[in-house]
Amino acid sequence: MIRRIDHIGIAVRDLDKAVAIYQGTLGLKSLGLETVESEGVRVAMLEVGPSRIELLTPLKPGEGPIGKFLESRGEGVHHVCFGVDGIDVTIETLGAAGLPFVGAAPRPGAHGCMVAFLHPKATCGVLIELSERPTHD
Amino acid sequence: MIRRIDHIGIAVRDLDKAVAIYQGTLGLKSLGLETVESEGVRVAMLEVGPSRIELLTPLKPGEGPIGKFLESRGEGVHHVCFGVDGIDVTIETLGAAGLPFVGAAPRPGAHGCMVAFLHPKATCGVLIELSERPTHD
Repeated sequence: MIRRIDHIGIAVRDLDKAVAIYQGTLGLKSLGLETVESEGVRVAMLEVGPSRIELLTPLKPGEGPIGKFLESRGEGVHHVCFGVDGIDVTIETLGAAGLPFVGAAPRPGAHGCMVAFLHPKATCGVLIELSERPTHD
Repeated sequence: MIRRIDHIGIAVRDLDKAVAIYQGTLGLKSLGLETVESEGVRVAMLEVGPSRIELLTPLKPGEGPIGKFLESRGEGVHHVCFGVDGIDVTIETLGAAGLPFVGAAPRPGAHGCMVAFLHPKATCGVLIELSERPTHD
């Protein structure tokens, strides 16, 4: 079951410049930077209430899902992540309702979360990530 | 000051079909439908924790900001709205920092809110709405 907006993922060309805008100017609190080699991205997480903004830039221009997204669409919202309870049951229910997933569902994500991605063709053009945190909060 | 993600606005071609997915399949709770003639849109609001999903479709295909967005970009996330406290001070601060606004800022929005829109060229391709509710909640 979907409980909240966990985060909004935004594809950016220049991570330092994006952090300067979202943290420095808009005033969101930084939760840190990390490199996710498996996804080919450098990530900045920012806090906004109980949700987060995830700024994503490719490690190499044009490579990986974010690099390809930037080449085809330019900067902007890449995905919306809903925090769920019971990701296995949620995936089973949505799959039975005919929603297609992208890649393995569920699979391990960052920080011990289990995640799954719904194909945007079935959700009005929005790439939706479902994420369950390892402990309830 | 930004406090939370108020809502995510999603441009859709067929509102009934979009509601069937986001409410019927994903299980988000409907907060109702409304027509906003001044913006040329029909809107469905759905609850997700303390935030909302706003599904927007043009009253006439290709017309108004949502109709034009659909023609140029297709379905997908149209804007991200941050809930703020003190919208006048926030606008003054962001304007002084060089962020450009689209249209009058602030101006009246739905449900008694005061709203303002930041130009996406200054925020990594994301159309950001700032919204202050008439009473604290």
